[in-house]
Amino acid sequence: MSLKAPNFNDIKDAHERIKAFIHKTPVFSSTSLNEILNVDLFFKCENFQKVGAFKFRGATNAVRLLSADEAKKGVTTHSSGNHAAALSLAAEQLGVPAYIVMPENAPEIKKKAVEGYGAKITYCEPTTKAREETSSLVQKETGATFIHPYNNFNVVCGQGTAAMEFLNEVNDLDVIIAPVGGGGLMSGTVISSKAIKPNIKVYGAEPLNADDACRSLKKGLIFPALPPNTIADGLLTSLGSLTFQILHEKLDGIFTVKEETIKKAMRMIWERMKIIVEPSAAVPLAAIIENKDLFKGQKVGLILSGGNVDLDNLPF
Amino acid sequence: MSLKAPNFNDIKDAHERIKAFIHKTPVFSSTSLNEILNVDLFFKCENFQKVGAFKFRGATNAVRLLSADEAKKGVTTHSSGNHAAALSLAAEQLGVPAYIVMPENAPEIKKKAVEGYGAKITYCEPTTKAREETSSLVQKETGATFIHPYNNFNVVCGQGTAAMEFLNEVNDLDVIIAPVGGGGLMSGTVISSKAIKPNIKVYGAEPLNADDACRSLKKGLIFPALPPNTIADGLLTSLGSLTFQILHEKLDGIFTVKEETIKKAMRMIWERMKIIVEPSAAVPLAAIIENKDLFKGQKVGLILSGGNVDLDNLPF
Repeated sequence: MSLKAPNFNDIKDAHERIKAFIHKTPVFSSTSLNEILNVDLFFKCENFQKVGAFKFRGATNAVRLLSADEAKKGVTTHSSGNHAAALSLAAEQLGVPAYIVMPENAPEIKKKAVEGYGAKITYCEPTTKAREETSSLVQKETGATFIHPYNNFNVVCGQGTAAMEFLNEVNDLDVIIAPVGGGGLMSGTVISSKAIKPNIKVYGAEPLNADDACRSLKKGLIFPALPPNTIADGLLTSLGSLTFQILHEKLDGIFTVKEETIKKAMRMIWERMKIIVEPSAAVPLAAIIENKDLFKGQKVGLILSGGNVDLDNLPF
Repeated sequence: MSLKAPNFNDIKDAHERIKAFIHKTPVFSSTSLNEILNVDLFFKCENFQKVGAFKFRGATNAVRLLSADEAKKGVTTHSSGNHAAALSLAAEQLGVPAYIVMPENAPEIKKKAVEGYGAKITYCEPTTKAREETSSLVQKETGATFIHPYNNFNVVCGQGTAAMEFLNEVNDLDVIIAPVGGGGLMSGTVISSKAIKPNIKVYGAEPLNADDACRSLKKGLIFPALPPNTIADGLLTSLGSLTFQILHEKLDGIFTVKEETIKKAMRMIWERMKIIVEPSAAVPLAAIIENKDLFKGQKVGLILSGGNVDLDNLPF
């Protein structure tokens, strides 16, 4: 059975819908990185997006598509990461209540961000089971609409607007690489990119220590993320039914990268480009570093997915 | 006796001369910082300048003004900081030899940067006396032109191009604040700003623990920098004869700020704006934090002077 997947028109509609509320993030390049890596790199800086991550695009699109009745009842999700903050701010901007289920052990800084955007937090034990059960309870009590962080048509459409802006600004890219966690950004990216430039190559990048997406696409069925051991804390989730279907059909491949290379890539971006990216955002550059010859002399676009790091707990 | 100081035409000429070789750095703003501080802030991002600091503007202007004969003999300076790297790259781009005198104990990363730009380093003991003597020897041996890091007409002209670009982009600023070390950036900033917008207020900001510029301007004579104890390692030098004269005539005042506020400001920029700035670059925001009421509701431009930090040795 095939799920209804977004097409590029859906993404263009999403962009019209959200463009007044999001940042049109800049595209950066770095002469020194290009010289070191012998490739022509372009970086779409979603670390500068509101709440510090691309997630705000999808959340805004989903919230703006609620009916009046749904909007009154609010939205809910379970997340300890960027999606929670993104959904909370997107909801707050429209006066929609947001109910976020977070594990008790979520970092203090993330709890504060979500609270700061006016969301109501319900804490649960830090297990998938507890998160899902608590989330179900919250939905029943409030009637709020559940907005999945990635396995959601409207969320995928929103995330696809980043690559759309990217290719509209740099229209002769040979390759685009984005990080893969649950596959929301990757799905939106591959739909936009192949529609705008059919012969472009679109790749994912994920940590070798959390390579479930790579294995899933190879085998043709969704592997759950094993208890992952990676600093790329935004890429711990497994693909969903919708994102798996899109990526299985369209993606040109996934690069898996070592932890050491992720740290090296992150540090290169900080030192050379003077911008702050979170470990997950450095994974595509890590793929370039580990596969230099493959991209030699090409124009390659990388999506820097976010910039939310705990400065008290850096990997270097 | 009055020294010949640059006027705005000299700075416009400098901009014509260097604009093909420098980055026209972007101007950033941050909704969350504006809300927290109740002020409308604009940041001129010289941390994205080549070599990671505004210093490349002045160095490029100075090197491009050498006669053919001077260019052949090369340039020299003594510096362990951003000026050394800036002069080395500016010289390398024009095929001019660069001879840099550095203290033996300069950070490894700074030595490598200067070497990477093809400059010849002469090491000396880490005292002012040794630096000046070694520098004199290098000048005698090579015939190279000494390019002072700030007390130099052409360097001041180059540094003034940052504020010129800034006000051309955001033309209704009420206030501009830049950090003050030797006063090169500050001098160029005040000349450009007052010429473009005569009623603008232009202030300096410096660490309370290195407040020699503030005391010098108040008393009307140059105080040397006392052995300073500040994390703002770009602001350790005292004013020169030229920069003192310009600032004494034109500057509206200098704010001195506490070390704790510099760290707080630096962290706010990193966390909220997702960009990397060095401690010295955070000093103007520290002045806003310590004087909130003074700037309430105004449009204030801050020059982020540089982004060269040692990631292994952060102040937080």
